[in-house]
Amino acid sequence: MRMSRARGTRERLVVIGGDAAGMSAASQARRLRGPGELEIVVFERGHFTSFSACGIPYWVGGDVVERDRLIARTPEEHRARDIDVRLRTEVTEIDVPGGRVRARDVDTGAESWTPYDKLVIATGARPVRPDLPGVDAPGVHGVQTLDDGQALLDTLARLRDRADGGAEGRRAVVVGAGYIGVEMAEALIKRGYDVTVVNRGEEPMATLDPDMGRMVRKAMEGLGVTMVNGAEVTKILTGDDGRVGAVGTEDAEFPADVVVLGIGVRPETALAAAAGLPLGPHGGLLTDLAMRVRGHENIWAGGDCVEVLDLVSRQDRYVPLGTHANKHGQVIGTNAGGGYATFPGVVGTAVSKVCDLEIARTGLREKDARRAGLQFETVTIESTSRAGYYPGASPMTVKMLAERRTGRLLGVQIVGREGAAKRVDIAAVALTAGMTAEQMTALDLGYAPPFSPVWDPVLVAARKAAAKVGRGVG
Amino acid sequence: MRMSRARGTRERLVVIGGDAAGMSAASQARRLRGPGELEIVVFERGHFTSFSACGIPYWVGGDVVERDRLIARTPEEHRARDIDVRLRTEVTEIDVPGGRVRARDVDTGAESWTPYDKLVIATGARPVRPDLPGVDAPGVHGVQTLDDGQALLDTLARLRDRADGGAEGRRAVVVGAGYIGVEMAEALIKRGYDVTVVNRGEEPMATLDPDMGRMVRKAMEGLGVTMVNGAEVTKILTGDDGRVGAVGTEDAEFPADVVVLGIGVRPETALAAAAGLPLGPHGGLLTDLAMRVRGHENIWAGGDCVEVLDLVSRQDRYVPLGTHANKHGQVIGTNAGGGYATFPGVVGTAVSKVCDLEIARTGLREKDARRAGLQFETVTIESTSRAGYYPGASPMTVKMLAERRTGRLLGVQIVGREGAAKRVDIAAVALTAGMTAEQMTALDLGYAPPFSPVWDPVLVAARKAAAKVGRGVG
Repeated sequence: MRMSRARGTRERLVVIGGDAAGMSAASQARRLRGPGELEIVVFERGHFTSFSACGIPYWVGGDVVERDRLIARTPEEHRARDIDVRLRTEVTEIDVPGGRVRARDVDTGAESWTPYDKLVIATGARPVRPDLPGVDAPGVHGVQTLDDGQALLDTLARLRDRADGGAEGRRAVVVGAGYIGVEMAEALIKRGYDVTVVNRGEEPMATLDPDMGRMVRKAMEGLGVTMVNGAEVTKILTGDDGRVGAVGTEDAEFPADVVVLGIGVRPETALAAAAGLPLGPHGGLLTDLAMRVRGHENIWAGGDCVEVLDLVSRQDRYVPLGTHANKHGQVIGTNAGGGYATFPGVVGTAVSKVCDLEIARTGLREKDARRAGLQFETVTIESTSRAGYYPGASPMTVKMLAERRTGRLLGVQIVGREGAAKRVDIAAVALTAGMTAEQMTALDLGYAPPFSPVWDPVLVAARKAAAKVGRGVG
Repeated sequence: MRMSRARGTRERLVVIGGDAAGMSAASQARRLRGPGELEIVVFERGHFTSFSACGIPYWVGGDVVERDRLIARTPEEHRARDIDVRLRTEVTEIDVPGGRVRARDVDTGAESWTPYDKLVIATGARPVRPDLPGVDAPGVHGVQTLDDGQALLDTLARLRDRADGGAEGRRAVVVGAGYIGVEMAEALIKRGYDVTVVNRGEEPMATLDPDMGRMVRKAMEGLGVTMVNGAEVTKILTGDDGRVGAVGTEDAEFPADVVVLGIGVRPETALAAAAGLPLGPHGGLLTDLAMRVRGHENIWAGGDCVEVLDLVSRQDRYVPLGTHANKHGQVIGTNAGGGYATFPGVVGTAVSKVCDLEIARTGLREKDARRAGLQFETVTIESTSRAGYYPGASPMTVKMLAERRTGRLLGVQIVGREGAAKRVDIAAVALTAGMTAEQMTALDLGYAPPFSPVWDPVLVAARKAAAKVGRGVG
């Protein structure tokens, strides 16, 4: 039953958050229902809509020259399609029983209530900002929004202007070595900085098992990055000018003219929590398969503020990623527009690169599998990106986890040069389909000498995994 | 029931054909059973074992410098693992009731019978050599074996030696525009030839629908190849020296100093036919799922001499491809060695390239689907290889066929630059799993700006196909 508020025949859809999930939902709903049927209001507290947060490291590093290239669709473009985008307007309360949201103009402070028939919560994520002394000092930057990226670039420009040709002014510390940390380290190297990455984990890229993360460390060191692993930041020191001067751990201090925080994000669900909406163990909103907030017929949520079902472990996980946010928005907009669509879940695919090293993962790491109560076999193989005799063939390492007894594929990690990253899609589809390693050995994958050895590296791993599970071809 | 011939406790496995399927079978059987248990004899009529026929165009074109780089394992290496490889020895008869084969030494003509307990037929394919006047003239070449490749290179060297700096001696005609024809055209361009491709079809690369093949034609023309489509070769003309001089069609004559035949291959099954073994409509041997010749407990067949089940159309097809041959050999060797493995079938994946244009297909073309009695929707989308704002993003075209009503994926064709070819693997796995276009829209594929737009091109096609089938998200 939809609680439809009488307002003639025209319903109002309110969207909180104007980025990937929110604007995809608004756009898709608009595609299905015209402005005569559905009014769409989007509240966005920032200056931008529909931007690519994933692109920020490449903008900072100079690969992408203009900020506006990261904006898929401007507020004006959305407005031209009858989506009422209200920038610099922050929703401060959701009144679920009353079917309305309170919004505040960030510049004037003026507040007002807006009723809704249907509500989409797409409040995204906030970067983890550890409660450390000095963390708010000038020169310490997150890289979550375009405003963050611009602020960092402004700092870099200021440092460049006062550079004296020595190390002073050219020292950057990146805290965290996940995707953002690794990408930001490379971006700062490109900008000519001496970069130190302080990482809590055993190896960078903790989304990989450490044996695969080691290859990422070597690539980073090859770029000239100083990797400090197994180190927890305890304080950020400031200079006489109040600006950041160093990053401190238990054991050491690392001089820093600029600090980038890349220690991940948490779901931005304070509003939802205050409204009594259901949150999961990771702090994200819980939804049903149609991306409806559980127990609420007319409220949907998607993007970086929700938890998603992991189809491999069958547990809820928090996987903030633009590609999911776009899919959520598409599903939400379809349902809110009167159609039907579902988001079945994720398998945990992610790809990245350091210099020309491509890094990919999907499914469960060893520790994920153990945590899910699964027993498994592990294999790691070395192969090449092309037929060995074809010019440019480069090494590729594939690690595969398969469940004991059933042989079901549980996860794949790939590190290599060209063609390594997107090869993980083979495993992503196989995981979705619930294939076993043995079934994978027969996959009819594309083969030609410029693109693959006659046994694709993923098949080589599958053969070995199938054999190890004891159900294999050999 | 295995008809085991008494010869102490040691059985003899005879393999006919020492290339991909045959040598994979021999090697895998050897892995499972030592020489004390199983004698393995391989008859090969050529000079080589385990070579990559797929690599020949790159050798002719100069990308691969040495012939021996195409040999995965030499006869000596196989012999070191107790596989008795007999080169230049052609099997001339299979006596199925008697459990023996007759082999002839190609050089001496001496013949003898060899009994077997288990037999593997891996006789491969022979190039189609049309019955045309002049087809056997010097200067007309197939490119199926290393010997063929060497003969062609010898011709090219001879032409180079007598080149006078003019067009004379630099004119090549390639007959056929399938994978081999297209790859050979590029190889000859690289060698400095004026290349004309005479093609019976409407567009080159008839393994694609013509609308996609058109992009291949443009790339070939961009390379400087003269494409003549819709033309059937009727004769090959020779000069006063008896060597090839031109290729003739109904309407025209194309001067040629060298001619390459790339009009496909047929299963080499004359031996099997004479022995009364079952052949399918395409002339290939018919096997069961364990790659056993149907009705014969102790005879297996694999590689380019068998037909395979197409998992999409559910019909037997002939798909000569090294990657299948290797899988067949692996399955056969496992079964012949006392283990268990099956080859479930293919979905028809193939990838290739022309210059930097990557070409991929899997599943059914429009005409295949119609022939299989399927009704379907077709969509074609344009997207990019990377996020649009990321440097080096290049266009990619994806065509998708999905069944009416069920929405089941039927086929995908992709043409683009970097990352186009192996992206087809996503669809290959989805076809194997029997996914619908709608299910594909939710696939958790790798996303990062250097590798993909936020919606992977394959997902964009799936969304559009799902919508068109009428079961989609929008």
